[in-house]
Amino acid sequence: MGPGTGASETDCANAYELGKLIAQEGWVLLTGGKNVGVMDAANTGAKAANGLTVGILPTADASGISNAIDIPIFTDMGNARNNINVLSSEVVIACGMGAGTASEVALAIKANKPVVLLTDHPEGQRFFSSLSTTAVLLAETPVAAIEIVKNFLKSQF
Amino acid sequence: MGPGTGASETDCANAYELGKLIAQEGWVLLTGGKNVGVMDAANTGAKAANGLTVGILPTADASGISNAIDIPIFTDMGNARNNINVLSSEVVIACGMGAGTASEVALAIKANKPVVLLTDHPEGQRFFSSLSTTAVLLAETPVAAIEIVKNFLKSQF
Amino acid sequence: MGPGTGASETDCANAYELGKLIAQEGWVLLTGGKNVGVMDAANTGAKAANGLTVGILPTADASGISNAIDIPIFTDMGNARNNINVLSSEVVIACGMGAGTASEVALAIKANKPVVLLTDHPEGQRFFSSLSTTAVLLAETPVAAIEIVKNFLKSQF
Amino acid sequence: MGPGTGASETDCANAYELGKLIAQEGWVLLTGGKNVGVMDAANTGAKAANGLTVGILPTADASGISNAIDIPIFTDMGNARNNINVLSSEVVIACGMGAGTASEVALAIKANKPVVLLTDHPEGQRFFSSLSTTAVLLAETPVAAIEIVKNFLKSQF
Repeated sequence: MGPGTGASETDCANAYELGKLIAQEGWVLLTGGKNVGVMDAANTGAKAANGLTVGILPTADASGISNAIDIPIFTDMGNARNNINVLSSEVVIACGMGAGTASEVALAIKANKPVVLLTDHPEGQRFFSSLSTTAVLLAETPVAAIEIVKNFLKSQF
Repeated sequence: MGPGTGASETDCANAYELGKLIAQEGWVLLTGGKNVGVMDAANTGAKAANGLTVGILPTADASGISNAIDIPIFTDMGNARNNINVLSSEVVIACGMGAGTASEVALAIKANKPVVLLTDHPEGQRFFSSLSTTAVLLAETPVAAIEIVKNFLKSQF
Repeated sequence: MGPGTGASETDCANAYELGKLIAQEGWVLLTGGKNVGVMDAANTGAKAANGLTVGILPTADASGISNAIDIPIFTDMGNARNNINVLSSEVVIACGMGAGTASEVALAIKANKPVVLLTDHPEGQRFFSSLSTTAVLLAETPVAAIEIVKNFLKSQF
Repeated sequence: MGPGTGASETDCANAYELGKLIAQEGWVLLTGGKNVGVMDAANTGAKAANGLTVGILPTADASGISNAIDIPIFTDMGNARNNINVLSSEVVIACGMGAGTASEVALAIKANKPVVLLTDHPEGQRFFSSLSTTAVLLAETPVAAIEIVKNFLKSQF
């Protein structure tokens, strides 16, 4: 999860790397599916490593969809689809920060999903850490984020 | 699309066959994802032919999910998720008939999606044909339903 | 519930009368809230009798809203909002018939809500009566529809 | 908007006062509609001043609904209904803070709705102020929150 049009270059580079690493782990990448920002970069990275990509689109049809989506789900629900993104993910990685991303992190905490924040947004780190001392984990690089996810998944079995 | 707990044996046998044929065509099967009725049978058929299966669940988690779902999408939206099922499908095949299935056929007509009715429910055939003379097509067997879909997809290119 | 742009003159006249009668009973009118067809006519009728009107809009904002809505609820969910219409109604009256209306009647049956059909659509009457022998009732006039609702509400207490 | 079971006594006292003041202004109160925390307190306050209350429930029926709701809207959408809460409000007042409330504040900023934070949660104040320098306003008392809303509404005309 991460910003669309408001994503920084660093966010997009991190997202591309995350998508690639997720695919290399054999995991399925799920994003908001649009052809902008973190969503587009993560899907492009995943496809570069032959991953499988699922996009939960806010729209009723393929307008504005990332070219790197294998399985598009058209919700026609705008930002209410953010809750579906979160519920359908085993772990949420927030790459960058913005209002939409913040809603997803908050909904993930509400749904007891583990969240990894890969962002240089200190107010966001402090705020979400204050909402949950257990579910929110901080990562400084894509590789570190993936390590956190691997440790979490290991702890589930 | 088709009934859950209210599905007949014929509906389930047809759904299994449909799932298998869909997989053999290399198409992705999308259903409501539950472990009952037409949904479960179609997914089981698709996995028997090594297909890829997507389930759009009404629930927030995996309770009641079919074992034959590869990609679960948890909506926590109950029957409002029927609109997502329809919007995310290129063609809708209704196998059997019931209130939930009827809502999906109606939403599909509303969204201008082609619908194939594989059902021995004459009132349903007459009603939906009266709502749209172009979008609703009738099939008597799974093989015939798949032929209709192939012809439709061919006409798109 | 009833058609928007596709509503007939009879549907709209019935809807206006229904809205008026609902208001005169002191009930709250809930519709899809748009400024077309049955929705607009019912709300206009209710306001003519000083009723309270709730509109569950498919949009994110007031574009296309009926002028006769007191309480607008903006869902930004397109036709997925039809399930909210039905769940939030004690009784559903379908005035006229079309694909959207059909989805609402089907979702109402699915949710065990009583449905009154005020429509001269014989295929629709036969189809929905075949889906539920108990929940679907037929009315020939707005006054008759209101009588059915009153009898139902009386039976609840 | 505000916490349910996690609400503090101060949050609930503020919410009761807010509900009362909103009703005294002749405004309609819209909340998440449950019989706990800030939602319940705000609705009780509004009814004490003869206000009109709308509840956007996460459930399919009246289980868990506040007794002080006049117009219940049953979404059966869980926390995805938070987006409807926000879109249907002209101004969002967040009373207290928690994961659900945070998702509503974030969705409100995303939807360009003005947000008043009435909370002693400094991390939340800093975070949301960092997301939007224009839409997020801070209030220390219910009366101050209402003043901010009045000024905003005046500026709209």
